[in-house]
Amino acid sequence: MRAAIIDGKAIGAQMRAEVAEAAAELATKGWQPKLISISVGDTAAAELYVRNQQKQANSAGVEFEARNYPEDTSLEQLTGILQGLNGDPRVNGIIIQRPLPDHIPVKVLQKLVHPLKDVEGMHPASIGNIVYNDLALGPCTAVAAVEILKTLPLQLEGLNVTVIGHSEIVGKPIAFLLMGLGCTVTVCHHMTRSVAMHSRAADAVFVAVGKPGLVTGEMLKPGAALIDIGINRIETPEGGKTVGDADFASCAEVAGWITPVPGGVGPVTVATLMKNAVLATRMQMDHYRDAYARTDV
Amino acid sequence: MRAAIIDGKAIGAQMRAEVAEAAAELATKGWQPKLISISVGDTAAAELYVRNQQKQANSAGVEFEARNYPEDTSLEQLTGILQGLNGDPRVNGIIIQRPLPDHIPVKVLQKLVHPLKDVEGMHPASIGNIVYNDLALGPCTAVAAVEILKTLPLQLEGLNVTVIGHSEIVGKPIAFLLMGLGCTVTVCHHMTRSVAMHSRAADAVFVAVGKPGLVTGEMLKPGAALIDIGINRIETPEGGKTVGDADFASCAEVAGWITPVPGGVGPVTVATLMKNAVLATRMQMDHYRDAYARTDV
Repeated sequence: MRAAIIDGKAIGAQMRAEVAEAAAELATKGWQPKLISISVGDTAAAELYVRNQQKQANSAGVEFEARNYPEDTSLEQLTGILQGLNGDPRVNGIIIQRPLPDHIPVKVLQKLVHPLKDVEGMHPASIGNIVYNDLALGPCTAVAAVEILKTLPLQLEGLNVTVIGHSEIVGKPIAFLLMGLGCTVTVCHHMTRSVAMHSRAADAVFVAVGKPGLVTGEMLKPGAALIDIGINRIETPEGGKTVGDADFASCAEVAGWITPVPGGVGPVTVATLMKNAVLATRMQMDHYRDAYARTDV
Repeated sequence: MRAAIIDGKAIGAQMRAEVAEAAAELATKGWQPKLISISVGDTAAAELYVRNQQKQANSAGVEFEARNYPEDTSLEQLTGILQGLNGDPRVNGIIIQRPLPDHIPVKVLQKLVHPLKDVEGMHPASIGNIVYNDLALGPCTAVAAVEILKTLPLQLEGLNVTVIGHSEIVGKPIAFLLMGLGCTVTVCHHMTRSVAMHSRAADAVFVAVGKPGLVTGEMLKPGAALIDIGINRIETPEGGKTVGDADFASCAEVAGWITPVPGGVGPVTVATLMKNAVLATRMQMDHYRDAYARTDV
C-alpha cells in the first residue's frame, strides 16, 4: 500500500479544540453557543447520531439540547416551534434530525430555519452565500470534505479536482467551495459518459454517491488524493460492515492519500457542525450589535 | 467557415413572444407583471441599457417604470425605498442598475430585494435555489447562455461541457444549471493550469471572462458548441468595435455552432429578464393565494 491514510478523528479533534477555545471566548461575552436538535416521531433511527453530536458538543464547549416531538406533530406546529427558536436569542443553531415523518417535508422545515441559525448549512441562502464566497454556514459534510483536502500538502490553486456525485448538499457545494479555493473542478454523476476519464486526470477525487466499490484504483492518477464521503452498510461473511464508495484496497495502492470509512470524513463532519455553531453565534452577536449601534446614530 | 451562427436575436424574440402570452394571461387574473428599474446618480452610463430594457419590456407585455434617484441618496434611503417596493403588491420585480455611486454597496442592495421580486436573480437565496434545482429566478446572463445551448440539437445528459470563468453571477450559475440538466461540467478560470486541455475535451464551451481573443479555434474540439458571453469594447483601425471573448474567425472554422457578439447571448439575456418578470409575478400570485387560502382553514 502506498497511500497515506488520512486520520479524520485527529483532524476532528483538532477542530473541536479550536472550537472549544472560540466558544469559551464567546461565553465570556455573554454568547455561550447553544444548539437545539429537533427530532420528530420515532427517534431510534437518529438516536445514535444525536447522542454522538451531544458528546462532541460537550467536548467542544457547545451547549446541546435534544428535543423530541411526537410523531403526530403537524407542520404548522413545527413551523411555530422553529419561529420561536429563530426569535430566541439564547438559541444559536437549529439541527433538523432526519428521518422525519412522511407528512413533514424536510426542505420546507430547512427553509424555516433562520439563515443566521442554519448550522447545518441547508438553507438556500446559506448555499447561495457559499457560491458568493462569503464566509457563511456551509453544509457540514461538504465543508468537512474540503477541510480534509486543505490539510494535505497540495497547492490548491490550479489543482485539478474531480467530484463524483452532484447532490445539492454534498457534491455541488464541494464543487463551489473548491472553485473558491482556486481549484479547476469537474463534476461527474450518473449521466457522465466516462467517470474514469475525468477521475484519472484529477490530482484529487471526491466521491459522494452511496455505491460501495464505485471508485477503483485503476480510475485514479498515481499519487492523487481520494476523499471518500460515501457511508454504506454492507454484509460480509464476517457480518455487517461500514464502507465508503471506494474499493479501499485497490485505491490505497494507487492514491497518495486516502480517507478511511469509518474514521475519515465522518468525524470531521460532526466537528464542522460545532464550528458552524461558533460561526453562527458570532454572526448573531455581530448582528445584534449592529442593530444596537444603529439606534445610537 | 464551418460553424452555424446562433441567432440570439431570433431566440430572444421567440422568448418575448412567449412572455407576452403569459403576461397577458396574468393580466386577466389581475396580475399584470410590472418591473421597477432603480438608477442612482449619473444615469448616462446605464441609460442606453435601461432604454433597451424598456423597449423589450413593452414588446413582451411587461410594464416597466424607470426611477432615477439623485447621486447623494443614502443607503438608508434606498433601503427604505426597496422595502416599500418589496411590500407593494403592484410591483413584481426590481432591477438595480449598475454602476451605483461609491457609497452604495451593490451586494447590500441586491440582498435587500425580496427573493420573490429578484428578477435579476442576484439574491443569495435565488442562487441557492438554483443549486437546489428549484424552478426559481436565475441570474439572467447565466440562464440566457444555457437557454441558447438548449436550442441546439445536442443530448444534454452526459454532455461534456467546459465553462471558462467562475464568477458568482455568470460562470458558477451556468455550471449548476448545466449540472441540473445532466451535463458533466468542468469549470476553468485564471488559476487553471491548462484551459486548452479542458476546452478541447468539451462538446460545448462557455466563456465569460472579459478578455478578447481568449478562446481560439485550436482550443476547441471540432464540431463543439461555443457560447461566448464576453462583451468587450476594442479599438480597431476602423474605429471602436464590440467583441466577445472568442477569436471569432478561428473559432468559427472549428466549432459546430457559435454565438456572435453582439447578437448572441445579449438579446437572450434581456428576454430572460422579462421571463423572470413573469415567473416572479406568478410566484407572487401563488404566494398571495396560499396566504389567503390559509386563513380560510
